[in-house]
Amino acid sequence: MALQSDPIDGFYVVIPAGGIGSRLWPLSRADAPKFLHDLTGSGSSLLRDTWDRMAPLAGEQRVMVVTGRAHRAAVEEQLPLLADANVVLESEPRESSAAIGLAAAILERREPGVVIGSFAADHVIKGARFFRQSVTEAVAAARAGYIATIGIRPTEPAVGFGYICAPQPVAIDGAPTAHIVQSFVEKPDLATAESYVTSGDYMWNAGMFISKASVLLEALGKTQPELLAGINELADAWDTPRRGVVVDKVWPRLVKIAIDYSVAEPAAAAGKLVVIPGEFDWDDVGDFASIAKLHSTGYKNDLAILGADARVLADASSGIVVSEGGRTIAVIGVKDIVIVDTPDALLVTTIANAQKVKSVVDALRLAGRDDVL
Amino acid sequence: MALQSDPIDGFYVVIPAGGIGSRLWPLSRADAPKFLHDLTGSGSSLLRDTWDRMAPLAGEQRVMVVTGRAHRAAVEEQLPLLADANVVLESEPRESSAAIGLAAAILERREPGVVIGSFAADHVIKGARFFRQSVTEAVAAARAGYIATIGIRPTEPAVGFGYICAPQPVAIDGAPTAHIVQSFVEKPDLATAESYVTSGDYMWNAGMFISKASVLLEALGKTQPELLAGINELADAWDTPRRGVVVDKVWPRLVKIAIDYSVAEPAAAAGKLVVIPGEFDWDDVGDFASIAKLHSTGYKNDLAILGADARVLADASSGIVVSEGGRTIAVIGVKDIVIVDTPDALLVTTIANAQKVKSVVDALRLAGRDDVL
Repeated sequence: MALQSDPIDGFYVVIPAGGIGSRLWPLSRADAPKFLHDLTGSGSSLLRDTWDRMAPLAGEQRVMVVTGRAHRAAVEEQLPLLADANVVLESEPRESSAAIGLAAAILERREPGVVIGSFAADHVIKGARFFRQSVTEAVAAARAGYIATIGIRPTEPAVGFGYICAPQPVAIDGAPTAHIVQSFVEKPDLATAESYVTSGDYMWNAGMFISKASVLLEALGKTQPELLAGINELADAWDTPRRGVVVDKVWPRLVKIAIDYSVAEPAAAAGKLVVIPGEFDWDDVGDFASIAKLHSTGYKNDLAILGADARVLADASSGIVVSEGGRTIAVIGVKDIVIVDTPDALLVTTIANAQKVKSVVDALRLAGRDDVL
Repeated sequence: MALQSDPIDGFYVVIPAGGIGSRLWPLSRADAPKFLHDLTGSGSSLLRDTWDRMAPLAGEQRVMVVTGRAHRAAVEEQLPLLADANVVLESEPRESSAAIGLAAAILERREPGVVIGSFAADHVIKGARFFRQSVTEAVAAARAGYIATIGIRPTEPAVGFGYICAPQPVAIDGAPTAHIVQSFVEKPDLATAESYVTSGDYMWNAGMFISKASVLLEALGKTQPELLAGINELADAWDTPRRGVVVDKVWPRLVKIAIDYSVAEPAAAAGKLVVIPGEFDWDDVGDFASIAKLHSTGYKNDLAILGADARVLADASSGIVVSEGGRTIAVIGVKDIVIVDTPDALLVTTIANAQKVKSVVDALRLAGRDDVL
């Protein structure tokens, strides 16, 4: 009998480590993306936390990371046990369908029939036992031929997340809590989000997808046949001396599309997608409001302070201060403030405006200020 | 007949350049005090603006600056025409009675009967013609034996300034607008300030004092005989080779007291103090709220930006950003904000809390953080 701490048989983890996290500028940058930061105060990066969470579920030799060439050194430093063969480098960002699809195609060739699960490198999860239980059910559903996702039971009417509508349970061996996904819905307004929470039929979309590699690739081929052809060409060459040549030729031409659109939504429409309701705490730490909440002690007028060398002098203030650079920071009488202090850029906004930070990044890009992006 | 642009006969200007300006931390520091900053956007420091305003009234050879030893080089760089003999260096700060008293005693010895006027190095004045008119009247009152001050007609019920109560005019040759000062009153609350503005009998105390040097010293001797004795000992030695020895011995023992308490208030109580109502714009630029107002274009939701190399990206924000250090600063959705960004320290507060900045400096001093003071 398998122990609770044993790896799940025949399971492989794929971690796409790509997104910069524009809403976390100026902390997250092209050369220091969100997944390389410690945003939880755990003492390690989100990527390392993800490894520590996932490696026991699949085994240390069965975790693949897909990341940009520029991040190779940082990723390998963070994950010393990551196998060389399991580092998939993107010559340029091509979105999640290409990243996860290529990982699936490589792994299917190495181990036909393998079940893979893709998990973001920059999310926060608390509750290891419940998480393992959800992944175990999702793998069982994948073995039964489904594409499975793990949804999060909403604890509040969040407007920053997409939702999964899944009112109907479905009978799958080893996945007793699985529900058929009826549809994915985009970030709602507050009233809609409230109705979702009340109804009980909706879960947060945490972007976790678990399926046989072959099933994922088949689904991808139905909506994106050219993308699949490119991925197969890459995978055929991957573990051969031709890899470099084929990558240079094929990778830059792959269509950029999120796997939500190429695989998940069409599979849901075809009744092939199930969701396992996750009973653990999850957050995508998508903006500074989310980070402030993570660090809240629950007190009103609380000021969260991040940064190993933070020197913050605060009076009658609340919100969050992120200090990277060791400067003395004095904060007086500002409520729900967001202050992010880095050596070359400073952000001052409010919790309520946290989602607007992306617009700053867009404006800086338009202005040619790539030096601070 | 004297031209409007001629120096005022027999008049000498004293500029005490001492205060750090704690409410302007982290811009103002011990090694970069308020008077060395360009807070108006004029392109020159407040000290230089003060020189440019005062030198024509007395003559370039008749301006004396009293400042700390540490600021000598900066002061001389700012004021290349300042005569060597007119730089009075304090070995340590001893407040305004010592600084102005010593200047008076030195000048009285050099030029018996001289009229001196002391004017802060870090205030802002607009309206040169009206200012000259006030100074001219004040000098006339000084020649008549009074100690004269120049009050500012309040344009609003400011709670950050002291007030001068002077309901009664007094007949003095050459000073037709002079009023006898009945009393000085400390910073009032808003209701009291409003009653002052309504009454018409009150003016802002701008800390300008004009009198014969001998009259000032006599008044000082009445309340602070030991201080006067020390000042006379210093002045006797000043233009001799003994200066250094005597300064080392006497200066550190001088009592610290503002000239308002040692001279102005007692002189007012004795009916010896007159005020000339100033019809020019004046501000002590005492805090960041004051600076924001100086730079306001009059539009609501205006964000004032100071700093030669400021790179500020602002959206839906108002208040003031002071940028010293060239970092990119993004400001989103913050109202009436005060952001002061320097290479080693950052302040974030609001216009309404501007006066509280001093408490940060006090806290940093208590914490032994002199490196950022």
